[in-house]
Amino acid sequence: MNILVTNDDGINAQGLWTLARALQDLGAVTVVAPDRDQSGIGAALTLQAVVRTRDVDPPPVKGIRAIAVEGTPADCVILAAETLVSGPIDLVVSGINQGSNLGLDILVSGTVGAALQGYFRMVPSIAISVASLTNVQFDAAARTARAMAQTLLNSTSGNGFPTPLLLNVNLPNVAPDCIKQVDITRLGPRQFLENVERGTNGRATHYWIKHNKNINPAVAEGTDIWALRNNHISITPLNGLFGADESASEFQALADAVASELGIG
Amino acid sequence: MNILVTNDDGINAQGLWTLARALQDLGAVTVVAPDRDQSGIGAALTLQAVVRTRDVDPPPVKGIRAIAVEGTPADCVILAAETLVSGPIDLVVSGINQGSNLGLDILVSGTVGAALQGYFRMVPSIAISVASLTNVQFDAAARTARAMAQTLLNSTSGNGFPTPLLLNVNLPNVAPDCIKQVDITRLGPRQFLENVERGTNGRATHYWIKHNKNINPAVAEGTDIWALRNNHISITPLNGLFGADESASEFQALADAVASELGIG
Amino acid sequence: MNILVTNDDGINAQGLWTLARALQDLGAVTVVAPDRDQSGIGAALTLQAVVRTRDVDPPPVKGIRAIAVEGTPADCVILAAETLVSGPIDLVVSGINQGSNLGLDILVSGTVGAALQGYFRMVPSIAISVASLTNVQFDAAARTARAMAQTLLNSTSGNGFPTPLLLNVNLPNVAPDCIKQVDITRLGPRQFLENVERGTNGRATHYWIKHNKNINPAVAEGTDIWALRNNHISITPLNGLFGADESASEFQALADAVASELGIG
Amino acid sequence: MNILVTNDDGINAQGLWTLARALQDLGAVTVVAPDRDQSGIGAALTLQAVVRTRDVDPPPVKGIRAIAVEGTPADCVILAAETLVSGPIDLVVSGINQGSNLGLDILVSGTVGAALQGYFRMVPSIAISVASLTNVQFDAAARTARAMAQTLLNSTSGNGFPTPLLLNVNLPNVAPDCIKQVDITRLGPRQFLENVERGTNGRATHYWIKHNKNINPAVAEGTDIWALRNNHISITPLNGLFGADESASEFQALADAVASELGIG
Repeated sequence: MNILVTNDDGINAQGLWTLARALQDLGAVTVVAPDRDQSGIGAALTLQAVVRTRDVDPPPVKGIRAIAVEGTPADCVILAAETLVSGPIDLVVSGINQGSNLGLDILVSGTVGAALQGYFRMVPSIAISVASLTNVQFDAAARTARAMAQTLLNSTSGNGFPTPLLLNVNLPNVAPDCIKQVDITRLGPRQFLENVERGTNGRATHYWIKHNKNINPAVAEGTDIWALRNNHISITPLNGLFGADESASEFQALADAVASELGIG
Repeated sequence: MNILVTNDDGINAQGLWTLARALQDLGAVTVVAPDRDQSGIGAALTLQAVVRTRDVDPPPVKGIRAIAVEGTPADCVILAAETLVSGPIDLVVSGINQGSNLGLDILVSGTVGAALQGYFRMVPSIAISVASLTNVQFDAAARTARAMAQTLLNSTSGNGFPTPLLLNVNLPNVAPDCIKQVDITRLGPRQFLENVERGTNGRATHYWIKHNKNINPAVAEGTDIWALRNNHISITPLNGLFGADESASEFQALADAVASELGIG
Repeated sequence: MNILVTNDDGINAQGLWTLARALQDLGAVTVVAPDRDQSGIGAALTLQAVVRTRDVDPPPVKGIRAIAVEGTPADCVILAAETLVSGPIDLVVSGINQGSNLGLDILVSGTVGAALQGYFRMVPSIAISVASLTNVQFDAAARTARAMAQTLLNSTSGNGFPTPLLLNVNLPNVAPDCIKQVDITRLGPRQFLENVERGTNGRATHYWIKHNKNINPAVAEGTDIWALRNNHISITPLNGLFGADESASEFQALADAVASELGIG
Repeated sequence: MNILVTNDDGINAQGLWTLARALQDLGAVTVVAPDRDQSGIGAALTLQAVVRTRDVDPPPVKGIRAIAVEGTPADCVILAAETLVSGPIDLVVSGINQGSNLGLDILVSGTVGAALQGYFRMVPSIAISVASLTNVQFDAAARTARAMAQTLLNSTSGNGFPTPLLLNVNLPNVAPDCIKQVDITRLGPRQFLENVERGTNGRATHYWIKHNKNINPAVAEGTDIWALRNNHISITPLNGLFGADESASEFQALADAVASELGIG
């Protein structure tokens, strides 16, 4: 099995390597990730400039091939699929992101932007995030990713998951034993808009765009945002959003696998 | 009425100024657009760097305030809404793009990425494109944008359009009198995937990502791609895709306004 | 005569067009300049990425071909000399910069970095700056550039200027009639070092480098810094610094031409 | 002793870490280097954007603090001197660069551009390069850097080296025992100009600038280029070029130290 691991926090992010390590015994893991933090870049492609790559040698985790890309998360998946990885990719996992990717805010998420390119190439793709920018607890997310990957890789012979498949997973930033439930959710509304701060370097005016104006939307039960507010794990199938078939029932097996891994219920 | 005009081809693109001129007598038009071509950038935000702006003075079209932004199309709309334009914006129009933006390829479209930020701020927003990279005929698109803008601005007192509203419009690259129909459509599948070409500058390997692998999908009648293949104008409400109400019947008034402007039917 | 005009403040800077206009009747003027402010970039070349250009059409000054370059000032001169300008270039003038370029600080000056590339290609090259970032009075500098250009272009048959030739010119920011003297000077020491300010965008630390720690060096009479402190125009031949012959006597004709143009002495 | 090691090939370059390791027992070595290849960037400063840094943890060489900078080589030295390194820096060594930096081509060298910032801050500074882009033999260069560093650090009590001090060192790409001589040299002329290649990404024209038009200058004995052509090590004091005192005799002690280290003569 060829597993591609990527992210948008960059090749040096702790979440990336926690994820790669968790998946390592499920197949041949290749890490292809941006060389710099690319948060906010969404599904952007680099079409106006060339993209350079660098082999990370030795890799931070022994036995895992790692390539840093001077480009976007989406670039990483495209390069991996088109040229860097030999043979077909069986699974794309993007993350583990520091900070949640919920509701329509996923449209500016590089974590989801990367997974989307796997989906477009008919590869089952997962984006996974933990809802904190600091002191992130990656343990439950790593185990969640592993349980989902295992379920999906075992099912490729066709036990019911739609093709293509795109899943957006979010976890509360708590210890594994504080998580009581795994929900199959639908995408909520935007949670954040952008603020703009004006500054100067002494010569000219500039602006900082900050994605932190919490508009604190009322959210219905069943959405990803609602699940996180209740300290549940949220698994959101994005197939429907992006044009493919989606039947909620099929996804329960994934929730069950995660619940089993975490000893819930 | 405050009308914001933007694009992803950059502040110097012909389509931008054709559009601004076409809308000029409907309200106070402000142009806020990237200073460089940003095609492929999608909905990306600049969160890792400061963004600088430059007043274009004199503007290419007299009486229109114009600001160039060293950033993405989404940055432009955010800066306009948060700080550059005084008072609320009543309409965002993004384009006229050189090259169609159809099907799920809109996810990497800066033209749509800009309009999306208007939509998120509850402003009726239109992305408009012509299906050719060269020898683009902007006339029909300019008249289409104008007819739609007029209809929307007159309706803000609430004659039936959903709020928020996001419309993706594509025209075939033909003279106005070759267009026989205006369709309200739904989004088709991806039309293109990316190719990767390998190169070198003599010191190191690099890659070019090209968004031009036409996967030529079978498309059903009713999709935007189907409409364009038949030389129709396509108006695709994206409300449903991005979480808001969508009722096809409400949009017919827009198609009628465009048909009337172009003398169709 | 082919005259190349460039700068580092960017294609939209007022000083660039004041300069181009002043030189327009001395030959065929082509403006090739960066599309963005490139202050501080020094002699940098873009070797790791492709460089794109855009014809500025119509140009801000009628009859002058203008090309914006997504690159450095040095890139502009290289592209002009190698491909954009037909036939040999007879003179490169870079400026009129907002802010002085004095002493060893010229090593981080894009204005001088551009002129250097003309010099390397055996073209007489002038960098010209006015000592103020705000409320810049370009008039005396434009007339100075014109008088020097005329002298150099008339002398190409060989009346004594060394080949290659690189001149760094600075003017005080005063009205032409406040200037009492034109000095042929030598380069002084560095005037400024850099400060660093620490900031955050809420996610990560960043730094601003500011080239504004005035170390206020003691400077001897005869240096460029000394000349400016006395409200003189400074013409500094950089030939000696960059490896070519330099004989101070030859340059007096330039000082005389400028003095005559400004009605000094 | 505080020793700062930097380069322009980037934080992952083999030459950087070979150098850091060679100097490790002479003092507290801090590596502050660009996160990407910055060849050609010269002395450029980042004044228009913020600069971010990242601790490299664990560092490739145990016991050496390492920081990657999203900026230029000059930025690295400025940040190190102004904020990242506690206490005064006693020595800056930049390299070991892959590819020679000879003659006036040093003006576009980031390796020298970094060392220059040490020099401007009154810190003895060395740029060191090996004359090959591929199959670089770093051994002799590492030993050369070490011998020079040791001599300079032992001499800070004032045994004759000028302050400030800037040395540009180049080695032929041969095994240590093929080197027969160490020359104190002067800077030669430019060896290379730039070629420009035109390309297209299918949408627009672009240019590649390549610093590889060998103009093969006639060079006199005593220049750095001449020394390399004869497989000697070249040590070029740049003090004179950059405004400070230079007396050739003082530098012989450095050549002697290197010759002794390499067992020459």
